Amino acid sequence: MDEIAYQNVSLSYFYPVKFRLATLIFTMVSTLSAQHADSLIFEKIMEEALIKGESYQRLGELCKTIGPRLSGSDQAEKGVYWAYSMLKSYGFDSVFHQPVMVPRWERGKVESLFFSSSVFSKKIKSGIPANYNCEAFEEQKLKPSKSYKIQACALGGSIGTKGVLQGEIIVVHNKNEMHELGKNGKLKGKIVLLNQAFYEGNINTFASYGACVGQRYMGAVDLAKYGAIAVLVRSMTNRCDLHPHTGSMAYVDSVPKIPAMAVASAVANLLDQMAKEDPLLKISMQMDCKWLPDRMSANTIAQTNGSLFPNKFIAFGGHFDSWDEGEGAHDDGAGCMHAFEALRILKSIGYIPRHSLRCVWWINEENGLRGAMEYAKLAKENGEIHVAALESDRGGFTPRGFSLDSAAMAFTIPYKKYLDAYGIGTLEKGGGGADIGPLKRNDPNTQLVGFIPDSQRYFDIHHAETDVFESVNKRELELGAAAVAIMIYILDQNLD
Amino acid sequence: MDEIAYQNVSLSYFYPVKFRLATLIFTMVSTLSAQHADSLIFEKIMEEALIKGESYQRLGELCKTIGPRLSGSDQAEKGVYWAYSMLKSYGFDSVFHQPVMVPRWERGKVESLFFSSSVFSKKIKSGIPANYNCEAFEEQKLKPSKSYKIQACALGGSIGTKGVLQGEIIVVHNKNEMHELGKNGKLKGKIVLLNQAFYEGNINTFASYGACVGQRYMGAVDLAKYGAIAVLVRSMTNRCDLHPHTGSMAYVDSVPKIPAMAVASAVANLLDQMAKEDPLLKISMQMDCKWLPDRMSANTIAQTNGSLFPNKFIAFGGHFDSWDEGEGAHDDGAGCMHAFEALRILKSIGYIPRHSLRCVWWINEENGLRGAMEYAKLAKENGEIHVAALESDRGGFTPRGFSLDSAAMAFTIPYKKYLDAYGIGTLEKGGGGADIGPLKRNDPNTQLVGFIPDSQRYFDIHHAETDVFESVNKRELELGAAAVAIMIYILDQNLD
Repeated sequence: MDEIAYQNVSLSYFYPVKFRLATLIFTMVSTLSAQHADSLIFEKIMEEALIKGESYQRLGELCKTIGPRLSGSDQAEKGVYWAYSMLKSYGFDSVFHQPVMVPRWERGKVESLFFSSSVFSKKIKSGIPANYNCEAFEEQKLKPSKSYKIQACALGGSIGTKGVLQGEIIVVHNKNEMHELGKNGKLKGKIVLLNQAFYEGNINTFASYGACVGQRYMGAVDLAKYGAIAVLVRSMTNRCDLHPHTGSMAYVDSVPKIPAMAVASAVANLLDQMAKEDPLLKISMQMDCKWLPDRMSANTIAQTNGSLFPNKFIAFGGHFDSWDEGEGAHDDGAGCMHAFEALRILKSIGYIPRHSLRCVWWINEENGLRGAMEYAKLAKENGEIHVAALESDRGGFTPRGFSLDSAAMAFTIPYKKYLDAYGIGTLEKGGGGADIGPLKRNDPNTQLVGFIPDSQRYFDIHHAETDVFESVNKRELELGAAAVAIMIYILDQNLD
Repeated sequence: MDEIAYQNVSLSYFYPVKFRLATLIFTMVSTLSAQHADSLIFEKIMEEALIKGESYQRLGELCKTIGPRLSGSDQAEKGVYWAYSMLKSYGFDSVFHQPVMVPRWERGKVESLFFSSSVFSKKIKSGIPANYNCEAFEEQKLKPSKSYKIQACALGGSIGTKGVLQGEIIVVHNKNEMHELGKNGKLKGKIVLLNQAFYEGNINTFASYGACVGQRYMGAVDLAKYGAIAVLVRSMTNRCDLHPHTGSMAYVDSVPKIPAMAVASAVANLLDQMAKEDPLLKISMQMDCKWLPDRMSANTIAQTNGSLFPNKFIAFGGHFDSWDEGEGAHDDGAGCMHAFEALRILKSIGYIPRHSLRCVWWINEENGLRGAMEYAKLAKENGEIHVAALESDRGGFTPRGFSLDSAAMAFTIPYKKYLDAYGIGTLEKGGGGADIGPLKRNDPNTQLVGFIPDSQRYFDIHHAETDVFESVNKRELELGAAAVAIMIYILDQNLD
C-alpha cells in the first residue's frame, strides 16, 4: 500500500494538475488490478513449489545416483544423459543437447600432504596447544610421530608433483607481503602457504570470497615468478575446520608451472603457527593429478515455446558440472533444479509464456566456461534474441532477492511489496553471472538477473566434500525455485 | 534515500506551505545526521558480533558441557550455576538469580512403541512399499517379525503406561474427524493417532506449527472424553523423517488422564497407511515417565545500569530451560546467547545505555512459564518499570527482522533502510512472546518486540534429538545477536 501511494505522489511533480489527476486514478486502478492478478500467480507458484515441488527429489537423484560431475569425467557424461531423460519425462515443448568440447583434468589417485616438526612432536605430548587456534583441529587424535598427514587436496587444474616434493614452508598473509618477500628472494625454493583468511565482518560472504579468491586462482603464477616450488592455499571458507576446498587455478605459458593444493582452514592456522615456532618445519606433498585431452560433453536445455515471441528467449539456469569433491549439491545442482522447477511450475499452473522459456544447464562453468561460450555462440549464429537471462549459482538456501540490470530493475520495483511478502524483495543493482555474461556480450540489451539466496552457509560447503545432498534443506530449495519462477514471470510479462 | 523522500513528501499534506518548507529542510538535516550516527553504531555492532563474537563458543559450552536442561532436572540446575558464573565473568554491572519453583517431569527409562501386523510382515518380504510414503523410512532395514519398534517418545507431561499398554489403532486427520468419530463411539478403547500434517504452503513455518500444535497440547484431553486409552501425535515438523519431536501437553482434572507419545512424521505416515490396509493393526506402548515434586530453580539475569533512567528497564532474553531431547541448541540456547551477546556487544563498543538493560534467561518456558511469571511478579513488587521487552525464541537462524508493538513500530520504521542493509528490515505488527507477555499485563505501555529469524529449518529440529550445537551455524547465530543488539539500541534511544 505504501509503495503504490509513493509512486503516485511522485507523479504529481511531473504532470500538470488536470492530467495528473486522471493519470493518477487510471494508474491506481490499472496498477492495482494488474498487480492483483500477478499476486495471485505468485501465490500459485509458491503453492506449487512448496506442496507439489519436484526439485528436492530430483536433486537427491542427481546427487546420489550420479554424484560429482567434473567436466570431462565419466560421471559428468552419465549425468548429461540422466539430465536429458529426466527433463524429457516432463513433457516440455523440447529438450535437447548442445554438444560442447570440455577440458578434462583428473585428480588422480595419489594426493597427500605431510608436515614434520620435532617442535610439534614434543608439544603434542601434552595435548594440542590452544594457540593452534582452531577447535576443529582437536578432532584429530595425534600421537608424536615423524610426520603428520594433514587435510589438503589438489586445486583444480594443478600439475602433479612427479613423486614426492619436499621443502621448507613459508607463510604469506596478503599480496603486499608476498611481493616484498618475493623481491627479497625469500620465496625461492620454498613451499609457500597463502593464508589470507576471509574478512568475517562482511554480511555478504561473497564479498569475502571475492577479496580472497585471487590467491587461489593466481597464486601459482605469482609465486613461480619468485622461484617458489609449490603453493598451498588456505581454503576459501568462513569455517575453521578440516575440510579442504578445491577450486580453479591458472597457469600462464610464460611462467613455470608449480603444483598447488588447497589446505583446510584449520590446517592453515596450524601451519601458520608452527612456522613461527619451528624454523625447520618441513612439508612433503604428492599428487598425480593431470590433464587429459578434451572430451565431448553438452549443455542440456528444456524449452517451453513462447506464444507471442517464439524466437525471443528468456534463458535461466545453473551449471551442471561440479567439482569432484562432494556431490555438487549446492554448487550447482541447486541452481539447475531452481531452473528446471521454475519451468515445470509455470507449465504446471497453466501459464502461457509470451517468450520462449529455456531452462539451461550449462556445462563446464567450474574450469572453462565452455558451455556458456558455446550457448552464446549458437544463440548468435541462430539469431535467437535473448531478452533476458537469469543465473542461479549461489546455492540452494533461503531466497532473499535478485540482482538486476537497470531496465529489469525499473519494471521489477513495482512488484517489490509482493516479493517482500515472500522474503525475496532484496533488489540489487547489476545483474550477471559467469554463465550468462556471454549473452550480454552478444546483445547489450539482454537483461541479466542474478538469483540471491542467503549467503551465510555457502562457503561452509563450497567446493568441499561437504557439498552433499544432506546439506540442502527441502523448503529452502523449493522457495528458491519459486522465487526464480516468479522472476521469470516478471521478465516475461515486462519485456518485449 | 527513497524512504526519507517519501516521509517528507507525505508531510506536505498536513502543513501549510511556508511552514512545510522549513520543516522539511529541518527534518531532512536532523534526521540524516542522527541516522548517520546510528548507522555507524550499527556497523560497530555488526563488526563486533562477526569478528569478536562470543555467542557461538558460549553456546557450544552450554550444549556440550551442560546439554539439555529440562526444568527441575539436575542438568538444568548445573546449567543455572554455569549461567551465573559465565555471565559474571564478563564484568556486567550486576549478575543475579531470581529463585523460581519449577515443575519436574521425568521421561524415565522405559519408552517404547511397537506395532504388529501380519499384513506388513508379508509385504516387506519384497521391500518397503513405496506407498508408505516417506523415503526416510527406508533408512531402516526391516525383516519380517512379530512386531516392529518405531520411533516415538513421550510428550512432556504425559503419565506413564503402568506396564505395557496394548490396543487397536485408529487414525484421525483433523478436529472435525475426531469429533465425528468420537461422537459415534469409534474412539472408545482405542489408541488414537492424531495425524494432522503441517500445511507446507505457508512461507512462515510458525503458521503451520500454530495450526497443528493443538492436537499435541489438547489431544489427550479431547480423546479421553471419547474413551480413548492413549494418544499418539504426529511430530510437529516440516520434515518427513524418523525423529520424534516432544513438546508440552495438557491434562484437565475433570477428564481421565491417558498416556501420550509423539511419533516421528515418517512413522505417522506408515501407521496411517497400514491402518487402511490391516484392520488388525495393533500397537503396544510402554513409558515410565512421571511427575515429581516441584524443585527450586532460577532465572539468571545480567544487567548494565542505565545512565538516565536507572530504574526503567529494557529486558531481553530467551528461555534457559529446554526439552530433554537434543541439547536445546536452537530452542532456546540460541535465544539466550543472542541476549547475552547483545549486552556484551553494547558494553564492548562503549555504548552507555539510557535505560537499565537486562539480559534475562527465563527458566521453565517449555512446561510451566514459571520463570516469566516470577520475573513479572518481582518487577511489579519492586516498581521496576519495563519500557520494553524483547524475546528471542525462534532459533539461531539468519535474522530477518522483528515483530513490534505499535509505538515501537512507529519509531523503528525510520531505521528500516539501515536494517534492510543487514537483511533485518522485516518489521511485522504485534510484538510478544511467551516469556515477555506477563510484563505487558503488568503495564500495557511496555513495548514488546519479537526477534524474527528465518523459519525454514526451525521445525526440522524443534524439540527433537537433532537440536544440537552442530545444527547451529556460527555466522547465522552471530548475525542474530547483532540484530538483537541493534534493536535494543533503537529501543533505548527512542523510549523514555
